[in-house]
Amino acid sequence: MMNKDQYEAYLKTLLPGVRFAPRDDELVGFYLMRKVLNQPLPPNCINDVLLYNYHPRTLTANGGNMSSPNGVAKEWYFFTPKDRKYHHSNRSTRGPGDGFWKTTGVDKPVKSSGKVIGWKKTLVFHQRKSGRKTNWMMHEYTLSNPWQRIDKNETQLENWELCRVYKRKKDRNQSPQLEISLLEADFGLLNN
Amino acid sequence: MMNKDQYEAYLKTLLPGVRFAPRDDELVGFYLMRKVLNQPLPPNCINDVLLYNYHPRTLTANGGNMSSPNGVAKEWYFFTPKDRKYHHSNRSTRGPGDGFWKTTGVDKPVKSSGKVIGWKKTLVFHQRKSGRKTNWMMHEYTLSNPWQRIDKNETQLENWELCRVYKRKKDRNQSPQLEISLLEADFGLLNN
Repeated sequence: MMNKDQYEAYLKTLLPGVRFAPRDDELVGFYLMRKVLNQPLPPNCINDVLLYNYHPRTLTANGGNMSSPNGVAKEWYFFTPKDRKYHHSNRSTRGPGDGFWKTTGVDKPVKSSGKVIGWKKTLVFHQRKSGRKTNWMMHEYTLSNPWQRIDKNETQLENWELCRVYKRKKDRNQSPQLEISLLEADFGLLNN
Repeated sequence: MMNKDQYEAYLKTLLPGVRFAPRDDELVGFYLMRKVLNQPLPPNCINDVLLYNYHPRTLTANGGNMSSPNGVAKEWYFFTPKDRKYHHSNRSTRGPGDGFWKTTGVDKPVKSSGKVIGWKKTLVFHQRKSGRKTNWMMHEYTLSNPWQRIDKNETQLENWELCRVYKRKKDRNQSPQLEISLLEADFGLLNN
């Protein structure tokens, strides 16, 4: 299996415009499913973290570029334990000292082959004191029925959820940080 | 340089969720710029075609899977010659016998490092007879000032635009066609 350094090197070999841009059904039906079933995962940029303990600024400061090639990071992915004690409680209790995550909109089903395999929740990070919204957003993915896929004799289920943290912006396609070096990029690796 | 078959094979080696998902600035500042300047391009899924001669259904029927790995195609990319005679004429004249492309919304600037490098136009394909909208959409990208980047002694500019053809849908992230085989995917290629 690749380690993080090898994975970063792998991302750099990708052709321009090729990046980790997973669909909801891939995040839930592949990455989260395998994580929960304790099955091997391919190298990836999804770090395990106690997500609700940290300000999103802190979360994304480390290894932020892991999630996209060419050093242009826009989204960060994390696995975080599904905390039973918060399961039915108010979302606003979830967050570090200086802020909290609050649900916005309704939960959306994530489907694969027409079947609901999980749920997607959108949350906004608010400042603790003012209660004001920040530009930090999150998609929180959970599995709907992971137990349907395991034999009782098999490994115990692990209780994880998958989160995508990102910053709200006007146009997701406009990035002021495009590395100009891309224009001069060398395709030596792929010109065989 | 890879040929089309090798490129398709390359796409299949990508990790789940990794795909050609270019930003506007990459399409314009990298792919279209190189095409117009007649510079070498890395292997890609952008086919040369007389786009306005064909119904989008026809365009996307061949090589449709080239633009995304794992056989799940949602977007198709094309280079097409910028036809001078249509340059200032009504968009509605552009299209095959059974329909036409019509602009919707306003042209958006495509920026790189804060500088406008091109424009993005959105078009909808309409039925010729009824004039009714279809679900076929297109983003048409053009360069703003390609001549700024060439020396007059160098190769002549080629007059191209880049188009992304896609089908409108409610939620871009929901795909009913996720190959279930993904769940059982073998990562042999990457487990070294």
